[in-house]
Amino acid sequence: MMRQAGRYLPSYRAVRAKASFLEMCRTPELACEVTLQPIDQLGFDAAILFSDILITLPAMGLDVAFPDAGPKIATPVRTREAIDKLVVPDPTSALAPTLEAVRQIKRGLAGRVPLIGFAGAPLTMLTYAVEGGGSKDYAHTKKLLYGDAPSAHALLDKLAQTCAAFLAAQVEAGCDAVQIFDSWGGIVSPGDFREYPLRYAKRVIEALRAHPAVKARNVPIIYFVNGCAPYLDDYASSGADVLGVDWRVGIDEVRRRVGDGVALQGNLDPGALFASPAEIRTRVADILARAGQTGHIFNLGHGVLPETDPEHVRAMVTAVKELSARA
Amino acid sequence: MMRQAGRYLPSYRAVRAKASFLEMCRTPELACEVTLQPIDQLGFDAAILFSDILITLPAMGLDVAFPDAGPKIATPVRTREAIDKLVVPDPTSALAPTLEAVRQIKRGLAGRVPLIGFAGAPLTMLTYAVEGGGSKDYAHTKKLLYGDAPSAHALLDKLAQTCAAFLAAQVEAGCDAVQIFDSWGGIVSPGDFREYPLRYAKRVIEALRAHPAVKARNVPIIYFVNGCAPYLDDYASSGADVLGVDWRVGIDEVRRRVGDGVALQGNLDPGALFASPAEIRTRVADILARAGQTGHIFNLGHGVLPETDPEHVRAMVTAVKELSARA
Repeated sequence: MMRQAGRYLPSYRAVRAKASFLEMCRTPELACEVTLQPIDQLGFDAAILFSDILITLPAMGLDVAFPDAGPKIATPVRTREAIDKLVVPDPTSALAPTLEAVRQIKRGLAGRVPLIGFAGAPLTMLTYAVEGGGSKDYAHTKKLLYGDAPSAHALLDKLAQTCAAFLAAQVEAGCDAVQIFDSWGGIVSPGDFREYPLRYAKRVIEALRAHPAVKARNVPIIYFVNGCAPYLDDYASSGADVLGVDWRVGIDEVRRRVGDGVALQGNLDPGALFASPAEIRTRVADILARAGQTGHIFNLGHGVLPETDPEHVRAMVTAVKELSARA
Repeated sequence: MMRQAGRYLPSYRAVRAKASFLEMCRTPELACEVTLQPIDQLGFDAAILFSDILITLPAMGLDVAFPDAGPKIATPVRTREAIDKLVVPDPTSALAPTLEAVRQIKRGLAGRVPLIGFAGAPLTMLTYAVEGGGSKDYAHTKKLLYGDAPSAHALLDKLAQTCAAFLAAQVEAGCDAVQIFDSWGGIVSPGDFREYPLRYAKRVIEALRAHPAVKARNVPIIYFVNGCAPYLDDYASSGADVLGVDWRVGIDEVRRRVGDGVALQGNLDPGALFASPAEIRTRVADILARAGQTGHIFNLGHGVLPETDPEHVRAMVTAVKELSARA
């Protein structure tokens, strides 16, 4: 479940009370502790590394703060000069705490379930770097993409290199699968989807495929575009083994459009966990029926919402396990 | 062009320097002045009433402020008690300034171009009332929709009545077409789209169809869902004459899926106006080609962005006129 280690768990909030979000990300013991909590407490089939997609930006040279209202970058990147100053970091030094967390989590899991690592996709990281945080209309992003395409491509190239190197390092540290998170890949037209988010996600995937550790263990690569519905004709061409599907589209429609060559992951509305356990079970059953019996990894369509009742998460997990076993 | 009277125009900013946004909405002379500016300056084929979708909420009993950072509702509606207290206003008194603006604009236009009125769709208005402003994840909205569906329906019912009455009054005051704006209709799964945004938009459309002034002049009804791609199989069933299409989906795909019984409006990315005039022309040509020669109203896929260069808007208008004439 995306963002399965998080604010909806009392045991997470207990850790968070003692450390800032960034400290948690950068302290391997704490990242390990909260990564394991949902596995121990709720019985998920896979662990997801506790981290944040923005963790690569400080390593590239940007000053990022994580107040509760959402991340803020002190000096957004909006000129060619600022883009040229960004570095492509060596993750083994610049992101060492995250890689150490991966090793500790792997030991803590002791083979119980696989561990999924992740990083932000190039276009999504571009939006944060350029906007300086979240955005309503992505005006600065679009000013760069459409008003100064060469600079946009220069930035995306650095972000793609950073993403690929970080994910490869996560695999070397022990991750059993990696996810490329394009939270804001869905803000553009279908033509621009091919030109920007998809193109650079493909580069990351190609680089990973060529990496010895990924090759040796045949590590699955997941690509997730939040708001994928407009791009289904192109989505499968990413080269990923698994495509993430948000909750706004029927997973049966996605299957029809992307064909049978790729697994799908999703797609319950995180907000549906506010419904009663009985209603949650009905919605789980509906998704399982639409997804069919093979090539589907049940998941939320995006991160779990902070105010979600853990007992409702448990109801979801139970429903998925029981209804999948029955099928 | 959506939000065609607005911050990108120097003449608008000159008016705005003298009055708050809400004062502009509520002062017929000012609303009239800025509505006519883009017609006089840029040569659009239709005028769009200067107003705001949130204008109905104070009339229903909510305290709304419009700071530059985005609208804020002092006491969001999150309980059945708060929902039951909301009134369905009589627009002829509660929204009289907007209706007077419509009459003044019609006189100012003197038949040059038609005038399009609008109101927020029920689900979109629910999100503002419940969240108290914009939102990243619509957690409060989903808590109400899925956690307390009867209360959600009670609120949507009041919002649908308000929307229908306000649009009917705009038609009585002289509007030649009306648009139902579902800016946040696209935050739900396809099943929930039918249950919530579409269901209540249909109610508004049915009520309008039955209204004498709408019937007498056969006033076209436009329904716009921002992020419509996941719902194309249901979108045409709204009963609207025209469906708005945002920029994230190919308008040719929309046409294939909704059939030939409805006109389409859209769908240039507002951010594409940051591109060069030559690139804007290329993108306009692409949309015109995809949309085909009939049943298409060229428009942006959402509101124009504040920092847009008016000369780029002019380039778009020129391209649309020249390339349509040639077709």
